[in-house]
Amino acid sequence: MPLYYGGLEAGGTKLVCALGTGPDTLVAEARLPTTTPAETLAAVVAFFKAQQAAHGPLAALGIGTFGPIDLDRTSPTYGYITATTKAGWSQVDVVGPLAAALGVPIGFDTDVNAAALGEWRWGAAQGLDTFVYLTVGTGIGGGAVVNGRPLHGLLHPEMGHIRVPHDWQADPYAGNCRFHGDCLEGLANGPALAERWGRPGSQLPRDHPAWALEAQYLAAGVANFIFSLSPQRVILGGGVMEQPQLFPLVRAEVQRLLGGYVQMPAVLTEIDRYIVPPALGGRAGVLGALALAELAGAAASA
Amino acid sequence: MPLYYGGLEAGGTKLVCALGTGPDTLVAEARLPTTTPAETLAAVVAFFKAQQAAHGPLAALGIGTFGPIDLDRTSPTYGYITATTKAGWSQVDVVGPLAAALGVPIGFDTDVNAAALGEWRWGAAQGLDTFVYLTVGTGIGGGAVVNGRPLHGLLHPEMGHIRVPHDWQADPYAGNCRFHGDCLEGLANGPALAERWGRPGSQLPRDHPAWALEAQYLAAGVANFIFSLSPQRVILGGGVMEQPQLFPLVRAEVQRLLGGYVQMPAVLTEIDRYIVPPALGGRAGVLGALALAELAGAAASA
Repeated sequence: MPLYYGGLEAGGTKLVCALGTGPDTLVAEARLPTTTPAETLAAVVAFFKAQQAAHGPLAALGIGTFGPIDLDRTSPTYGYITATTKAGWSQVDVVGPLAAALGVPIGFDTDVNAAALGEWRWGAAQGLDTFVYLTVGTGIGGGAVVNGRPLHGLLHPEMGHIRVPHDWQADPYAGNCRFHGDCLEGLANGPALAERWGRPGSQLPRDHPAWALEAQYLAAGVANFIFSLSPQRVILGGGVMEQPQLFPLVRAEVQRLLGGYVQMPAVLTEIDRYIVPPALGGRAGVLGALALAELAGAAASA
Repeated sequence: MPLYYGGLEAGGTKLVCALGTGPDTLVAEARLPTTTPAETLAAVVAFFKAQQAAHGPLAALGIGTFGPIDLDRTSPTYGYITATTKAGWSQVDVVGPLAAALGVPIGFDTDVNAAALGEWRWGAAQGLDTFVYLTVGTGIGGGAVVNGRPLHGLLHPEMGHIRVPHDWQADPYAGNCRFHGDCLEGLANGPALAERWGRPGSQLPRDHPAWALEAQYLAAGVANFIFSLSPQRVILGGGVMEQPQLFPLVRAEVQRLLGGYVQMPAVLTEIDRYIVPPALGGRAGVLGALALAELAGAAASA
């Protein structure tokens, strides 16, 4: 009987659970609403217990979740969602109850680090040493993989919260980040588009000036990540990036901001293949969770 | 006879060569002026050949150099200084002539990545997985070590060139970066201090408003690097940081910019130990080159 990996993508409104070994071998998938921690985690346990009954033991479970989270294995709150703004979920142990109920190795990371790892394993970043994955939606989150492992350190990247130049003359909108006001997320997330222009991005024409301004901020972020991390590719996903006119605008503005300083063909002439959408689309998160399970399984058997 | 490592720190005005195995075991050190590539590299070869005659064969040579440089081992110009603004040094092969003359494994990286590695090996970043080293002087450069290896990717980080909010009202100075105008380097390097205030930083009183503005820009950079890389420590070196009043100003402004979002004691209450000067001081560069030699020697014998 083959061993399966479990993947759990935990978002603020729904969770996606999957069982399998990769994008073409999923044997089960389920979507669950995110309610209270106790109810939600019990439903996750029930899903995977049922899968184990049907398909045999899990090799490992990977969890990619909204955050912030505690990734420090020496910390008493390792595996917790920490100071989140999601009601009821602050200081909630996620890894503990699932490890106790399922008895398998658990990989745990942010939703964006998981999605980045999924793109590295099966998507648009295969074979790369270092790349950045940015998701632009209700929030802006960024993950990075360096030498095949999600980037951690003091905590985990929170790339959406960098400061970029705010074009006050063209854009008096103050930003909506409740921590930082006009950080990248506060200026360029989906709600900023809607509040600034009076209707959501999905209702703005493709030639609306909203998109050039949006691209200006996103490109400032991307250029800063290029200067900071030297990624071999930048993947831009999330709901806002489903507006196809954004990619060429962002690419052109990134080139302008780099100013010829990074003398590499990837950014000078091949930027269409350098700043790209996720190959796994909306599945990057749950598939990334499977990839986290792979890493956890390999670490446990090493 | 013990094996020694060679270290070469190549700057735009001088080079520092050293022989030894670490900060307490240097058996020789020399400073050479940076003149033409042919003359300079010949002097470096002569130094190390003389050392080999006196002390026996080198185990490896490490080179930390001004850049930009080509770090891609599959590239035909691997080991070159590429599009530098330093006259005569553009597209110059550094690794090739030294490898041919000395016949030893060569480690090659940017000056700031080397300095970061030196701090990781013997200085203020020992035992850390991920940290950032920023040098603030004539230019602003940043290096990072992730899991014990200097961070590379498409190229190498160029952290000094990120954009940060330019406080035009308080600061009409346009910035001096010849590529980007008011990027972090253009706003906060040593020459910006001198041009903005009419005299060099070393002649400005410690309570001059120059320092609060300088700290504002540096902190914007540091906060962005924290959000992007989640470093476990940030080391700030270089001539400008020798102004001791800068550290408390930068730390306070970084805390303000993080806005309580990164809920870790390191930045909330222990920031004096989180944003620190280099422990190796001005020796970080050449000692980092020795650490690069160690890595190259280990890789060659693996």
